Parts: sequence; C-alpha cells; structure tokens
Amino acid sequence: MPLLKSWVASANSANHPFPLNNLPYGVFSTGEDEPRCGVAIGDMILDMAAAEAEGLVALTEYPLFDVPYWNDLMEEGPAVWAALRERLSALLAKGSKEQEAVEPLLVPMAEATLHMPLVVSEYTDFYAGRQHAQNMGAILRGSPDLPANWLHIPIGYNGRASSVVVSGTPIHRPNGQTKAPDAEMPSFGPSKRLDIELEMGAIVGTGSEFGQPITVDEADAMIFGYVLLNDWSARDIQGWEYQPLGPFQGKAFGTSISPWIVTAAALEPFRAPTPPREKKLLPYLSGSKEGLYDIELEVLMQPEGADSASVIARTNYSRMYYSAAEQLCHHAIGGCAMNAGDLLGSGTISGPERSEFGSLMELSWAGREPFTLETGETRGFIEDGDTLTLRGNARGDGYTIGFGDCVGQILPAKAWG
Amino acid sequence: MPLLKSWVASANSANHPFPLNNLPYGVFSTGEDEPRCGVAIGDMILDMAAAEAEGLVALTEYPLFDVPYWNDLMEEGPAVWAALRERLSALLAKGSKEQEAVEPLLVPMAEATLHMPLVVSEYTDFYAGRQHAQNMGAILRGSPDLPANWLHIPIGYNGRASSVVVSGTPIHRPNGQTKAPDAEMPSFGPSKRLDIELEMGAIVGTGSEFGQPITVDEADAMIFGYVLLNDWSARDIQGWEYQPLGPFQGKAFGTSISPWIVTAAALEPFRAPTPPREKKLLPYLSGSKEGLYDIELEVLMQPEGADSASVIARTNYSRMYYSAAEQLCHHAIGGCAMNAGDLLGSGTISGPERSEFGSLMELSWAGREPFTLETGETRGFIEDGDTLTLRGNARGDGYTIGFGDCVGQILPAKAWG
Repeated sequence: MPLLKSWVASANSANHPFPLNNLPYGVFSTGEDEPRCGVAIGDMILDMAAAEAEGLVALTEYPLFDVPYWNDLMEEGPAVWAALRERLSALLAKGSKEQEAVEPLLVPMAEATLHMPLVVSEYTDFYAGRQHAQNMGAILRGSPDLPANWLHIPIGYNGRASSVVVSGTPIHRPNGQTKAPDAEMPSFGPSKRLDIELEMGAIVGTGSEFGQPITVDEADAMIFGYVLLNDWSARDIQGWEYQPLGPFQGKAFGTSISPWIVTAAALEPFRAPTPPREKKLLPYLSGSKEGLYDIELEVLMQPEGADSASVIARTNYSRMYYSAAEQLCHHAIGGCAMNAGDLLGSGTISGPERSEFGSLMELSWAGREPFTLETGETRGFIEDGDTLTLRGNARGDGYTIGFGDCVGQILPAKAWG
Repeated sequence: MPLLKSWVASANSANHPFPLNNLPYGVFSTGEDEPRCGVAIGDMILDMAAAEAEGLVALTEYPLFDVPYWNDLMEEGPAVWAALRERLSALLAKGSKEQEAVEPLLVPMAEATLHMPLVVSEYTDFYAGRQHAQNMGAILRGSPDLPANWLHIPIGYNGRASSVVVSGTPIHRPNGQTKAPDAEMPSFGPSKRLDIELEMGAIVGTGSEFGQPITVDEADAMIFGYVLLNDWSARDIQGWEYQPLGPFQGKAFGTSISPWIVTAAALEPFRAPTPPREKKLLPYLSGSKEGLYDIELEVLMQPEGADSASVIARTNYSRMYYSAAEQLCHHAIGGCAMNAGDLLGSGTISGPERSEFGSLMELSWAGREPFTLETGETRGFIEDGDTLTLRGNARGDGYTIGFGDCVGQILPAKAWG
C-alpha cells in the first residue's frame, strides 16, 4: 500500500508518523477544555467530539466521542471500528468534499495536551521475548535455559491497571523492600536498580464471556489496537519479592504507554510471522494469521540537563516468540472473561544482538558492564532525572506508521518513614 | 456490645446472621426489577433505592443507592459511611418513630435474587496464612520451610477482577494446559485437581493517589468492609504455569464472594491481634490497631444428589499472620494507586490442626490421603456436581454477625477442540 494523500499537508511526508494510512486514536485537551477523543492526522488532531456534534461522524444513535476514552467505541465491535476508519479516511482524504466542514475542527497538536487514550480495565504483562527470557536466565540464574513451560505457554502475570499512565507522566523512583544477598535482614528504601522494559501493548476491544474460551483467530479479531508500553521495573524489589507468586510491587509504580492507539487495521500491512516453533504448540494455540507486526523500535535515554538523547537500543516487535492473539487466547482459555480496555503487555522485546536488548538489565548485564551514552556518561540502571523514551515505526511503501513517543522521566523517591 | 433490638422481629435472635448490629450491604432484585442496593436486617432486605427515593436516607445531594453496586457510597469516604450506619441503625431500631415509613420498603430475602454487591476494580490475592504456606511447601517441595521473604513481606499477586462472581454462580471446571511430572510434553484438557481456598476478602473503600504510599493506620481506615471469598484453584494448571511469574490461569476461572459486604464498623468489636512476629517487621508495616478479626469460618461440601452438606473444615480468620491493613499498606508502598472497589483476598486460612485446613490440597494432602464425607463418599479434589460452601460468623454477646453463605457448584468442563 502506498502513502494515502490527505488535504492536511503535514500528513503527506514519507517519514511523518501520522499519515492518512495511520489515523491513530488519542484523548486530548486544549486550555481549559475537557479531555475528549481525537484522531491524529499530520501535525493536527481532529476533534472527534466536535465532528460528532457537527454530524460529520454518526456511527450510532448515541454519542461516542465526547468522553476521555475510546472504550465506548471499542464496545461497539469490529463492524463499527471499520465504519469509523472508512469515514475518517474519506473525510481527511485529498479531494474530500467535506474538507471545508472538517478543517475548523482540527487542533494543532503542538497546542494540545495528550491524556490516557483509554480506561485500562485490567492489565496483564507477558514474557514472550525469547532472547529476553534467555538473557534474564543467564543474568539471574547463571543459565540461559528457558523456564520449563516457556516454549509451551505464553506465560504472563496480572499487573496493576491503576499503575498505567500516559506518556509524559513523571514516575517517582519507588520505595520498597529489598534484601542484599549477603544481608541477614531486608531493608526499606528507594530502589537502586531501576529499569525499563521495551514492550508493545495490545488493547482488547471486544470482550469474551465468563466461562467461555476463545480461539486464536477469535482473539485476533478482538484486538482493537496497539500502543508502545514501558513496563518500568525495580529489579531489586522484584528480585526479593517474586518467589513464589511472581512480580508485584517491583512492577506496580508505573507503566507508561504511548498517547496514540494505532489500530490493528492500520497495522494490517505489517503482519509478520512468529518464528518457527522449537516445540510444537498445543492445538488451542494455533491460528490462521501471522500474529506479529514488523514495527521498528528504539529506546532513547537522556540524562537531566543533557542536550540530546542517546539511542541505547534498536529492535523490532517481530522478534517476539508469541503473538498478542496467542496470549489473549491463552488468557481466556480457562474461562477468564476478557473486557474492552484490557491491556496486554507483550513482554520485553530483545533481539539477538546486545544493541537490540530491550532493558537496562540486559544492556548493562545487571550493571556489571555499564554502557556509555553520547554525553560520555555511563549507566548501569536509571539515575534520578533520566528521561527514557520508546519510539516505534512501521515502514510502508513511502509512508510511516508511528505511535507518538512513549516518554517518562524518573524523579527522586518520595521521603518516607 | 449486646444484641441491639430491631422492630424487625427475625433480626432479634442470637444466632441470626443479620441483626441490627450487622447491617451488611448487598445488591438485590425481585422479579423483573433492576438490581439495586439493599441492607440485610433479619429475614428482610431494606430497599435502599426506595428508602432514598422516600427521603428516609439523604446523605448527599445526589442519589447513591439506585445502582447495582456500593462503590458510589465507598467513594464518599468514612464520614458518610458512619453517617449511613447511624441512620440505618436509627431507622431499624426497636421503637423507631419511622417504623411505619420503613416497613413497606422491606423485601423478604426469600423472594430476592442477590447480585454482586460491588464492581470489583482490581483483585489482589495474598498468601498470608502461615500454616497454609507451610503445608503447601511440605506438599509441593517436601519441606515446610517458608519462602525466604514470607516473614518479611505480606506477599501477594494480582488476580483477575473479571473472574470474581457472586455466591451462587456456577463455575465450570476449567480447561487448561498441564504437564504430568513424567510426561515429555504438556497436554490440554479439564483440570483434574480442582480445589477451593477459604479466604476473607477486604474491600478498599477509599483510594490512594498514584505515587503516594500509605501507612498501615491509613490503610486500616481505607477498608470499607469484608466478604467471604473462595479462590477456586486448578492445582494442576497452576503447578505447570506458575514458575517464574506466579499463578495465572489456574486462578482465573472463578473467584466467589459472599453476597453481603459486612462493614468494618460492624466487625469493630471483633478485632484480634496478629500473632507474635518471628522476625521483626520493617517499620513501614507497623500499625497501631489489631488488624485481624475473630471470625469463625466453616467449609462445607455436598456431592450432587446428597441430602446434606458435610463440614470439612473449621477455622478462624484470626489465624492469619498478616492483616488486610498490612497487605494494603504494602500494596501501595511503591506508589501503586489503590481504588474504591479493590478487593484483597487474605490468602488461604488454615489453622494448625488438619481439621482447620482451608483447601482440599491440604485436607487430602494433595489427594494422597482422601477424606470422607458424611455420605461415605471420599474426596481428594472436587468432582463435577459438588457444591462448596464457605460460612463465616463473628460471635458477639448474644448476637452473631454473618456474611451469608458463599456457595458455588462445579459444573463439567465445556467441550473444547
């Protein structure tokens, strides 16, 4: 598919993240206005509440967009999702007869504040990057062997929806309980091994019934879209707490997502296969579609006061072993109800080369081999004031599909006790 | 405190679970009516939507009770919780001048259907029963030694709110992935080791801010009330999936709660201390109040077609090592926001004697030592058609505080594949 031309001139560049091919969904406000739904097109945001009020978008008999979340649209299901995309494509296409009516409803993105694009119903984080799992095994247990279940189950754990925040939200270094290997007793204080995890987040749009399992193909059709996701991690808190019940407070102080939800429809041209299966998966985990996407990913780090950010990792979402559809199928296989707004983190995305590792734990090999930024500073883990940015782009034939940066700055821990 | 007398005669028995001292909160409907808030008094339910419409209860300028959940009241905070309890106590007390106005608003409980009493925001399950943790260690790892962190952290994991259902909801035996120890490959099918976990659930009423830790005393004041909670568990699914990320699908097919939320205020006379600390807790986990409650608990099992249920375990909530307030404090210590409607499972409650064990895994020692029901049948784990009931009572001076039974029947697994 080539670049689709829009009458919004800034959308027609091969490198702009928000061409007509994309049309990602966010929530914005300007000045004192209430946050509401918007669609990114070039450097502008189409005010969806206004477009609906003007009668330019009328998918249902009740309003969907004068709210600070896209969950209402999700609940309408795939036919309405497709109808909206078709309508927006027509309204914003070069030569649209409605340009004159739509133009006054565009808000410059530079003047807008972006908010959480959805209400996260529940948040689940998976562990589907093979290189990451092998690296963590090598670092923590001295062996790159995968957990026994890893090649059979897209293993995951339930995270905390209340900790998910939009890009730009500062994150305080968490206080927590840790224990040094040689210490007799644990201690309490700010995490000393603060990390990121480079992930994609899949957003469930159509729910499933309690007690009713789903297939991988059904799961694929239930996915509304994707965001970039930074699963901030306190490795020292996590290391002390996680046996035998899994990660808890080491992962609960913040999870950042990109401000724009890129729809599954926009990503369709970028489908990519999961890698060959070393062990044959059980039949319930088989689907008919390629479940990953070819999305280039970057991690950037910028110390406080530095002039520019350094790229510290580059990899691709298609490096994963399990797809979001496989994860969602497994999530519901015992009868767990899935709901619109459920967010599924892919797990940390790491490619085979060190430059492709998606966490500082791996990039610095647990701090033992600090890496060097362009400023000359070195890092093992995150220091106070550091800003971490995730960036994602799918590269089409003369166009780019972007997510908007997923940014977070780490602030010092709050005083306690 | 003695029995408080009500003009609702059935509430004045020493053994009735719903005297004036209790006033638990539920959601009910009759016939084709919409579910709405109700308060149990004796054999009756006070229709709170009607009481509000009649002007008998007016705590706020907007209605709180014509909805199928108590979350709106929770959001109002402790002062309004106390005002409601005071008002209800006055309306329903023997000699109330408003008896004539209130009487028509009572609905016989026998004619009502009970629904989920709250919208569960997020669900967390803890592991705070020492005897249970020791039993599980002995059964699964051959040693009753506690995990290294257990005496220092009220460890827990995030569960799945969408799996929480009200008492009476049937639960299908889940399908899932399991692997026998001697099998080369995993297999898929109905769980063969289906279990219960006897727990109490604490309901968060007042939230905490993202990034803002809380103290144990603040956490104690944030708790709105308690329910009985059966954390149904598929031990074979759990055993294969849980390393290294913790329980997931083995716990996601259903969690049953009692239909009535007993308020923290009603339980106040039954406060009980946590046991002496074997290891001194870190200062952030210390509070000034006794955090457990003296609540007698029973588990009953009834095979399909049997005339009666057999009591298979009897224990007490005060057997726990950590309180809900300690758990809630730890949950928020890194900055995780807590919200009204969050549900915290206590962890399985097991006393020191075998007759006090709160799961079949422990009662049958992983199925190796089946126990015998009054019908003469034996059980290792749950069979299709079995009904499991949790019952809880706090015994006061001439009165009882009950929760309503927490009941669930296991139906056969759904066909799949």
